[in-house]
Amino acid sequence: MSGHHAATETARVETFSDGVFAIAITLLGLGLKVPAPDRGSLLVALVHEWPRLLAFITSFVTIGIVWINHHRLFTHIRRVSHGLLLWNGLLLMAVSLIPFTTDLIATYIGHDGAKVAAAVYAGSQVFVTLAFDLVWRHGTRRRRLVDHHLARPTVRRINLQYGFGPVLYMASLFVASASALASVLLDIVFAVFYALPAFTVPDAGAELPQSGGDPASG
Amino acid sequence: MSGHHAATETARVETFSDGVFAIAITLLGLGLKVPAPDRGSLLVALVHEWPRLLAFITSFVTIGIVWINHHRLFTHIRRVSHGLLLWNGLLLMAVSLIPFTTDLIATYIGHDGAKVAAAVYAGSQVFVTLAFDLVWRHGTRRRRLVDHHLARPTVRRINLQYGFGPVLYMASLFVASASALASVLLDIVFAVFYALPAFTVPDAGAELPQSGGDPASG
Amino acid sequence: MSGHHAATETARVETFSDGVFAIAITLLGLGLKVPAPDRGSLLVALVHEWPRLLAFITSFVTIGIVWINHHRLFTHIRRVSHGLLLWNGLLLMAVSLIPFTTDLIATYIGHDGAKVAAAVYAGSQVFVTLAFDLVWRHGTRRRRLVDHHLARPTVRRINLQYGFGPVLYMASLFVASASALASVLLDIVFAVFYALPAFTVPDAGAELPQSGGDPASG
Amino acid sequence: MSGHHAATETARVETFSDGVFAIAITLLGLGLKVPAPDRGSLLVALVHEWPRLLAFITSFVTIGIVWINHHRLFTHIRRVSHGLLLWNGLLLMAVSLIPFTTDLIATYIGHDGAKVAAAVYAGSQVFVTLAFDLVWRHGTRRRRLVDHHLARPTVRRINLQYGFGPVLYMASLFVASASALASVLLDIVFAVFYALPAFTVPDAGAELPQSGGDPASG
Repeated sequence: MSGHHAATETARVETFSDGVFAIAITLLGLGLKVPAPDRGSLLVALVHEWPRLLAFITSFVTIGIVWINHHRLFTHIRRVSHGLLLWNGLLLMAVSLIPFTTDLIATYIGHDGAKVAAAVYAGSQVFVTLAFDLVWRHGTRRRRLVDHHLARPTVRRINLQYGFGPVLYMASLFVASASALASVLLDIVFAVFYALPAFTVPDAGAELPQSGGDPASG
Repeated sequence: MSGHHAATETARVETFSDGVFAIAITLLGLGLKVPAPDRGSLLVALVHEWPRLLAFITSFVTIGIVWINHHRLFTHIRRVSHGLLLWNGLLLMAVSLIPFTTDLIATYIGHDGAKVAAAVYAGSQVFVTLAFDLVWRHGTRRRRLVDHHLARPTVRRINLQYGFGPVLYMASLFVASASALASVLLDIVFAVFYALPAFTVPDAGAELPQSGGDPASG
Repeated sequence: MSGHHAATETARVETFSDGVFAIAITLLGLGLKVPAPDRGSLLVALVHEWPRLLAFITSFVTIGIVWINHHRLFTHIRRVSHGLLLWNGLLLMAVSLIPFTTDLIATYIGHDGAKVAAAVYAGSQVFVTLAFDLVWRHGTRRRRLVDHHLARPTVRRINLQYGFGPVLYMASLFVASASALASVLLDIVFAVFYALPAFTVPDAGAELPQSGGDPASG
Repeated sequence: MSGHHAATETARVETFSDGVFAIAITLLGLGLKVPAPDRGSLLVALVHEWPRLLAFITSFVTIGIVWINHHRLFTHIRRVSHGLLLWNGLLLMAVSLIPFTTDLIATYIGHDGAKVAAAVYAGSQVFVTLAFDLVWRHGTRRRRLVDHHLARPTVRRINLQYGFGPVLYMASLFVASASALASVLLDIVFAVFYALPAFTVPDAGAELPQSGGDPASG
């Protein structure tokens, strides 16, 4: 009975988080602007929109990867503590800032202030990765909220990988002081890097026999 | 069979409510405006945006706390009455007004009309807390809709705490007549206050033994 | 096994529909416009916004009631046919037009074109109620998709009530040719009318004993 | 146990995808613009909005059909691989571009640049159908992720049908170089064509006896 309640509880945290992730990622599309008609070639105008497309793709991949890891993390979580709700709320706040910082960098590439915009953009990704790190550490610390199938070495490996996230984006923040474009390109490299299977949280089934299984563990 | 139907029914009220909460909280991010390029320092322009950031954080925390309590409340609810749907609809209407009132206060801090804007903002939070109170009281009155694990003293304690919510924001509404900024700062203090574990609805599992449990209660 | 698949299938139609309902209802809040600062009294400006608030409330209540009935209807539905998906898609198209027609009437009350705007607004509600009617009739015709607990007289009573919906809003459409405001006020009266418990689809549990039940029906 | 985890996992991919589909489809409604008041007849102004309405309907039907097929596909999927998450992410990226390309074609029909806009619009639908194809092929290849009830001939038939999708929209892209309007009308014909029952993925229950079933397969 208690187990059923717990399952229901994590389900709703996931639904709410999925909502925020899905809305933030879809709102990114609103950052693409339709050029005003009758002002010369549309093709030329669309080509000039490349910073908006680049920013859209970078942020879409970033939020997508964070969602995949969030989803994986919650396949392990069995209980929801008040602290987890608060850290998860902080992560969602960071995610809901991304459409704004994406619009900012997309507007400023090629204009005065591009470096400031790139620094703010990288800063928003430091915020997202740091908040994700806090959710993960809170959830796995002393194995309070995760199920007992999650191996200790896995937790340590991911702790290490996720500890690197904010550091990487902090580096991108410093690169922004030299070149806004280089900073954004670094951001997309980091997102692709975290999309590699080796750098994602394993899902709950991955450490178990996939089908059949042995009766002893059932 | 009847129990299964009821579970499905509350599940969908939660999904719909989560959708509205998630959209309203993510739309808050649209309230942050990208300064027009080539009009002087971006850094200075962003620093001048502080009222928008403050309003964003205040409203995000407020909606987040209301969501946490709504989520907790529904871990107790087993049946959905027509009245509950209507009161819950009123709460969702109040929540969907928050992005507008947030934009209003963010636009008016530092301009003529700031006090009116702060009063409207605090008023929208009176509306949210009052509507939440009505959902809670309707759900727990004569223990019609909640499960029997929810202790009477818990219900009484939360009745008291939630009765205070509208009163606190009403105070903030009056403070607005003296200072818009003081009123917004009060609003964020109230939100943080309600985020303390002691002031949230306990979740359904909290009053039961978390694992194992004794057979007598099963 | 097949039953489990079917349950999963209706669950996802509900999730998707809930998403569209929740987004459309929350986007209504974007129809409220923040008056530009430093152009005279904010209080006066906000009072002049009353058509936007009226339109917001009318549409919120309308979509809310349609959602409640949709939610009730799906407590009865056990299977999803291709036709049901298409009719449900038509309903969601109608619902996603409401934020536009709401913005239209809110902009035009008190201006030339108010009657046209009110007719379009009432027309969008004819569309919603007609589409809902089609979903309901398709779902209940020859009791193909509903469970066997739904009594025949209940289906007939609701058929009658729902057949009236488009007729009522059609009347409001004609009233618009005399007075835009009268037409909108009629729309809100109809929405409140359909919010009365007697005019909503009964939920699946309502025709069964709520708790315990007799073993013969289990 | 492992099966339960897997079920939870696909559920959340579906919830997240449903969110993106629902938001993208509802945001289409924001593409309909309210004409500024007091600038002549509203009726005439609304009639001039026909390209926006046409684009809205075309995109709504397209996203709706893709959602129906996505939903059907996931009634077959039992496991989620890392690759499936990435291909699904690509599909969601394509879907979240549709509100932009819809706005683009709606703005440009009847203006210089209409053919470019129609080509971009058809291009975004090539992207959606190609990405859906990749999700489908990844999911069904060597029957890794689907359940064993899905018949081999069904997979082959759908492979063929879905392989045609990008080809059809590519044709529409070439038609755009002759006529923007003809290209959009072709797009809507394709969407209606894919809405025919014979051209959708069969759902998981369709190849099994719907009720009762034989005990041997249970």
